[in-house]
Amino acid sequence: MAAPKGEWQLIEWIRSRIHLDPATVPIGPGDDMALVSLGGESQCLLTIDALLEGTHFDLAKAKPRQVGYKAMAVSLSDVAAMAAKPVCGLAWVGLPDGRDMAFAEQLSLGLNDAADAFSCPVVGGDVTSWQQPLTIGTAVVARPAGIRPVRRSGARPGDMLFVTGQLGGSSLGRHLTFTPRIAEARRLAATVAVHAMIDLSDGLSTDLGHMARESGVAAEVTAEAVPVSSAAARLAKTTGRTPLDHALNDGEDFELLLAVGPEDGESLVRANPLGDVRLTCIGRAGEGRGVTIVAEGGERRPLPPGGFEHFKPAAPGET
Amino acid sequence: MAAPKGEWQLIEWIRSRIHLDPATVPIGPGDDMALVSLGGESQCLLTIDALLEGTHFDLAKAKPRQVGYKAMAVSLSDVAAMAAKPVCGLAWVGLPDGRDMAFAEQLSLGLNDAADAFSCPVVGGDVTSWQQPLTIGTAVVARPAGIRPVRRSGARPGDMLFVTGQLGGSSLGRHLTFTPRIAEARRLAATVAVHAMIDLSDGLSTDLGHMARESGVAAEVTAEAVPVSSAAARLAKTTGRTPLDHALNDGEDFELLLAVGPEDGESLVRANPLGDVRLTCIGRAGEGRGVTIVAEGGERRPLPPGGFEHFKPAAPGET
Repeated sequence: MAAPKGEWQLIEWIRSRIHLDPATVPIGPGDDMALVSLGGESQCLLTIDALLEGTHFDLAKAKPRQVGYKAMAVSLSDVAAMAAKPVCGLAWVGLPDGRDMAFAEQLSLGLNDAADAFSCPVVGGDVTSWQQPLTIGTAVVARPAGIRPVRRSGARPGDMLFVTGQLGGSSLGRHLTFTPRIAEARRLAATVAVHAMIDLSDGLSTDLGHMARESGVAAEVTAEAVPVSSAAARLAKTTGRTPLDHALNDGEDFELLLAVGPEDGESLVRANPLGDVRLTCIGRAGEGRGVTIVAEGGERRPLPPGGFEHFKPAAPGET
Repeated sequence: MAAPKGEWQLIEWIRSRIHLDPATVPIGPGDDMALVSLGGESQCLLTIDALLEGTHFDLAKAKPRQVGYKAMAVSLSDVAAMAAKPVCGLAWVGLPDGRDMAFAEQLSLGLNDAADAFSCPVVGGDVTSWQQPLTIGTAVVARPAGIRPVRRSGARPGDMLFVTGQLGGSSLGRHLTFTPRIAEARRLAATVAVHAMIDLSDGLSTDLGHMARESGVAAEVTAEAVPVSSAAARLAKTTGRTPLDHALNDGEDFELLLAVGPEDGESLVRANPLGDVRLTCIGRAGEGRGVTIVAEGGERRPLPPGGFEHFKPAAPGET
């Protein structure tokens, strides 16, 4: 019997099947965006995402304009993770039967709210009505624009690990209103040598696991250093979990996690280059593999991926 | 009470809201692909599509590998419509709970069947499991590669109208196995001045309507000239409709419709430049507006859009 396999295993399988020419596809599947050559010196970065009603938003709590905003912002967060500059976006909407033009217009306005804020015009798309819940797919094109795209896989032993913003409790509202950290990513990458970067979509524990595995390093998180949001604290009161647990595992923070060398890291700590957006050193990369968390008393324990992993296939033999 | 509005009205509304800089977005929403500048001389073309289980395929009749193939081929057909050259693709899959890795792998193999056939590697994507029917989103990047992108809007009065292949009855199987007409489009555009081109996704009557409206011309189709596929004839036996009706209205032919000047048109008729792929003059563009069909006896009647239009919203006030 095949063992249950997750999203990551499927992506690994797809990667193992695809033989991309690094001259034309310098960055293929598995990073926040792919990087492709368009001939000559010209390159572009690409990402595709989708939001599903019931999984990524609840129309009882979110206005359609907010859903449109989130759909485009999720892809723009991938642009941030590569320290790239947005060029344009595309959107596809599966519209539930019974939703009218006004609803579709609000979605479109929301898509454009995010697009306009980041000079990333929606240049095309499609709408299909169907009898299923609302689904919005987005694709975004970006370009390096003078900054070499930052991958997930470049963290080195000894690197200091930083996150922007504050983590956890995004489901209480921030997942609909967050600001993709494009300006912050480009400022950081222009200031220091960012070895690796990823946006926190699946939760710190999961995304740090991705970075560590892709980089071939271990990672250690200092529990008391993790910037826990006030929303995480509020949410903890209703869930019985700790605010730290929420900050480590909730997902949909859409903040940045990055790795820089120790000297650059110390200079970031001193310089506070992001102004109002908090930048916090949460730990270190080291030799080995796996992610560890160090509690206040010094106790060390593994920090397994706790963010949601979407693809949990059922037993084999069902096709 | 607002009149029922279709997909086209929504797209018109979106277009009216978006003010794109033609220097950076020479072709925006409403064509088969958008054309964007990446700085300097560099440009790329973009499209996004999605296939929905129940609407675009039936897993009782289609193998998952065929569905994967179709998903990528639909976007590649947009590349053909612009006479462009594919660069790469992205895919997003909403996988029903209960489908296993083997099913996902077959989808992925199918995506790559189409991608490999057109040198359009799948460079990224995502998989999400959900409790809804299978949904696959695809985005494709292309480049002009020496041929100016052909728009829908360039048809002129007096132009001869051609279609590739044979039309109708695609639902009997060809919608899963069709060949995007990329090679044919590029050969045509390299041979003659193609004024306008579109791929037949919604049916000849609908797509010719798009071309005529966007070009500001009328169009006249000669009924007996329409190349009716044998599948259309087979399907007609079960539906009670005529084979011609199927050829005009079925949709999902993924053949090309193009407009060229009379001299170029005559040279295409003489030269048969596409070898085994039939190229048929089906009518003419003229002054005015609207699409007309001329029956064998000479009777003229309007040919309204008969292809399926997805977005038929319900009564207003439902948001």
